[in-house]
Amino acid sequence: MQRIDLNCDLGESYGIWTLGQDEQVLAQVSSANIACGFHAGDPGTMRRTVALAAARGVAIGAHPSLPDLQGFGRREMAVSADEVHALTLYQIGALHSFAKSKNTQMNHVKPHGALYNMAARDPALAEAIAAAVAEFDRDLILVGLAGSALLAAGRAAGLAVAAEAFCDRRYRADGSLMPRREADAVIHDADMAITQALSIVQQGCVTAGDGSRVVISADTLCIHGDQPNAAVFAARLRAALVAAGVEIRALSNC
Amino acid sequence: MQRIDLNCDLGESYGIWTLGQDEQVLAQVSSANIACGFHAGDPGTMRRTVALAAARGVAIGAHPSLPDLQGFGRREMAVSADEVHALTLYQIGALHSFAKSKNTQMNHVKPHGALYNMAARDPALAEAIAAAVAEFDRDLILVGLAGSALLAAGRAAGLAVAAEAFCDRRYRADGSLMPRREADAVIHDADMAITQALSIVQQGCVTAGDGSRVVISADTLCIHGDQPNAAVFAARLRAALVAAGVEIRALSNC
Amino acid sequence: MQRIDLNCDLGESYGIWTLGQDEQVLAQVSSANIACGFHAGDPGTMRRTVALAAARGVAIGAHPSLPDLQGFGRREMAVSADEVHALTLYQIGALHSFAKSKNTQMNHVKPHGALYNMAARDPALAEAIAAAVAEFDRDLILVGLAGSALLAAGRAAGLAVAAEAFCDRRYRADGSLMPRREADAVIHDADMAITQALSIVQQGCVTAGDGSRVVISADTLCIHGDQPNAAVFAARLRAALVAAGVEIRALSNC
Amino acid sequence: MQRIDLNCDLGESYGIWTLGQDEQVLAQVSSANIACGFHAGDPGTMRRTVALAAARGVAIGAHPSLPDLQGFGRREMAVSADEVHALTLYQIGALHSFAKSKNTQMNHVKPHGALYNMAARDPALAEAIAAAVAEFDRDLILVGLAGSALLAAGRAAGLAVAAEAFCDRRYRADGSLMPRREADAVIHDADMAITQALSIVQQGCVTAGDGSRVVISADTLCIHGDQPNAAVFAARLRAALVAAGVEIRALSNC
Repeated sequence: MQRIDLNCDLGESYGIWTLGQDEQVLAQVSSANIACGFHAGDPGTMRRTVALAAARGVAIGAHPSLPDLQGFGRREMAVSADEVHALTLYQIGALHSFAKSKNTQMNHVKPHGALYNMAARDPALAEAIAAAVAEFDRDLILVGLAGSALLAAGRAAGLAVAAEAFCDRRYRADGSLMPRREADAVIHDADMAITQALSIVQQGCVTAGDGSRVVISADTLCIHGDQPNAAVFAARLRAALVAAGVEIRALSNC
Repeated sequence: MQRIDLNCDLGESYGIWTLGQDEQVLAQVSSANIACGFHAGDPGTMRRTVALAAARGVAIGAHPSLPDLQGFGRREMAVSADEVHALTLYQIGALHSFAKSKNTQMNHVKPHGALYNMAARDPALAEAIAAAVAEFDRDLILVGLAGSALLAAGRAAGLAVAAEAFCDRRYRADGSLMPRREADAVIHDADMAITQALSIVQQGCVTAGDGSRVVISADTLCIHGDQPNAAVFAARLRAALVAAGVEIRALSNC
Repeated sequence: MQRIDLNCDLGESYGIWTLGQDEQVLAQVSSANIACGFHAGDPGTMRRTVALAAARGVAIGAHPSLPDLQGFGRREMAVSADEVHALTLYQIGALHSFAKSKNTQMNHVKPHGALYNMAARDPALAEAIAAAVAEFDRDLILVGLAGSALLAAGRAAGLAVAAEAFCDRRYRADGSLMPRREADAVIHDADMAITQALSIVQQGCVTAGDGSRVVISADTLCIHGDQPNAAVFAARLRAALVAAGVEIRALSNC
Repeated sequence: MQRIDLNCDLGESYGIWTLGQDEQVLAQVSSANIACGFHAGDPGTMRRTVALAAARGVAIGAHPSLPDLQGFGRREMAVSADEVHALTLYQIGALHSFAKSKNTQMNHVKPHGALYNMAARDPALAEAIAAAVAEFDRDLILVGLAGSALLAAGRAAGLAVAAEAFCDRRYRADGSLMPRREADAVIHDADMAITQALSIVQQGCVTAGDGSRVVISADTLCIHGDQPNAAVFAARLRAALVAAGVEIRALSNC
């Protein structure tokens, strides 16, 4: 039986401001990447999100970011590998604390936004993240872009890694994501996104923007939780996968 | 043989800015209260301070604060017990992460500045801190002002607690500290401070500002690390205690 | 002809997070209190909000706050008068800059949240704010709670002041607001709030919680922009005032 | 008679943390670039630094930065031109407020750290800064690296600009600064730095790292205030310039 993890970024409110449809999305996904205070997620929000995920039986992951609340962690910064190592340790420890207080535990770590993109291509930053995760807990699963430097660094550090793929982003022939600035980068049509998801899970491939066939081996699919219809889409995607005989299951390092 | 713990606030630099004489003070104390990013202590500083303390064999503690970098955590804020619970979990988790990455562990938690003072007198905030510490790790020792609401809350939560006394602060007849705004609140003379320390450790009492004798049962003495002569004073205090046959030893929950 | 100013807190988004219904509310009010970055309002949001207000012909005011993004400036802090003086200058200068860049100008200053409440009762903080405003520009109008220490300090500093009243808050017999923790503190019924507004503007009085009649001399009425129905209520209030022959007009120091 | 401006970054303390030797350096320089809160400089520090500069008759300038307290504004960030425009307006307005409160005024604007470097080479960011300065006050002088995109943008926006040169940095044959990562990038020897300063002011040229002669037309020389010996070096440089018949004078747009 085929299986896949569905993950979504959650806990991205901050103080008075709310973002996302956390409760509804949690009903559909198997893994939650929870903001750790650097791009979103004050301590109260982190505690609440961890509790919600635990109550739903959704696997909990840390979602560490560059320190950029104003830019939501989406602006690349010239941080050193040393700085990335320290800020990763800080944030995964903070999230672990809320998991521990609810008698549960973190299952994975997935860098957020600009840090995710930088770690996908820069081996030094990727190694810094992998080292921080491995130093904290060798049983954590490191999630990164399929084919990225981050996954290579995770494997080299002895970690279980999970390759992430996107149902609503267009791929290029070389397996990289089409940059968002290009017109067709995002797949807005829900049916097309679900078709791509099924193709990834069942055939292990997608049709790239130029029509070519690209092999994608994915352990987890990302659902963008900041879309207005995130919960509805997640429910449809989940139903389509289940109907196709795919098991939705959180990542495991066994 | 009598014994006492000597503790000092450390890791209070931030980014480019340095504060304190951490390396020299670490040579004298048995416990380090390490800033966790809310009043001081960026992730890199936390990592470095934990490594220094571990290398010296000094016990590592978290020093959580109100979120107030500009005011160094010294300005009281109208935070709820719920907010204090969450910010305590966040910060102790972050520090734990650096300890874990160095294959060592936290030994204690001591709230910082305004949070320390508020938790000394407000049972609801004290309970919030004690609950956070107990939920994170029941083996952690909670450090607070001797006779304070924080120690009562810690005991009620089933935690080992440590009563803190001050060698360089004047006490009032009721055992409370003379407020800093009063003229004689701080003992600037090193000899007098050492005399008070010996009195606390050996006789379990101090002479209050009005000349009366106050019973103080202390497990740990605080050294103020932000004084220009902190390291010199710490060395003199340590020598005086050792010469009097007192063992300097980190707190233990056994 | 009777007249009144209608003011509303605006520009309270931050980065990715949005709050309020600024465009719709701006169609109804005569004065906008614009967040200055300390409780909400990143630089881009400030620029956009100033441009919107200027385009609508709504008078622009600075809405300085305690430095507390996580708590939205609603948590009282033990800040000194000196600190309040500096943070007020900082924030009104920042807002002035956006007004100047749009070839318009600030008309008033109204402290936000906890700072508003502290300045209403603490003469030293009130004087610090009034001094900052007067040093920056003697033509600015200082807005505060009717009968508050802030208005007294403003007058003493030679500033024009504007007394603010609330249509949706219950008053006590002494003219102070019933604290929010009391059951009847907020008037949720729109008709009752409009009745209170008309009473303030036309009779210069309100009926207090205990049924007594309280004299309120108000120059401006506050509309709470963070309510889900803020824009609808503002439109109804405006229509009721206009129907009663009241002119809605921004504050003026002439 | 030849003349030059001497400028130094000042007001780079934050809260409890101090940096630099502001009082001593102010005795030597003619222009102060004052931190505006984004990389350093809390409101109280800004007020104090403006007062010190005003008392010394030193020209006051804003020193806006990327929002990066932890990195002291030295880490490049992928900010948009739009974001740079807004953060420049915000920060120069904040500094202006302190100048106004002291009955003095800003004379110039010089971007800080990473923003300075990015604006030197990126025309879009340079234009955003120049537009913000021109919108705020057309009489302000824009300071940037000699030959940079920032000066070109300033001129295009109708601003007076001032070209900055460095006495303690090695130049390359093309007039650019040798990057700090190269061994000889910084001139640590005070005599050599003074020789380079005299060469810039008197001959309008420097000897580059490869021995070639580079023409540098400078209006202002930068003194690095974060060096331990900044004040001593500033005094020596000033004396050498005066002895050579050079007038030290603040920038003027007349």
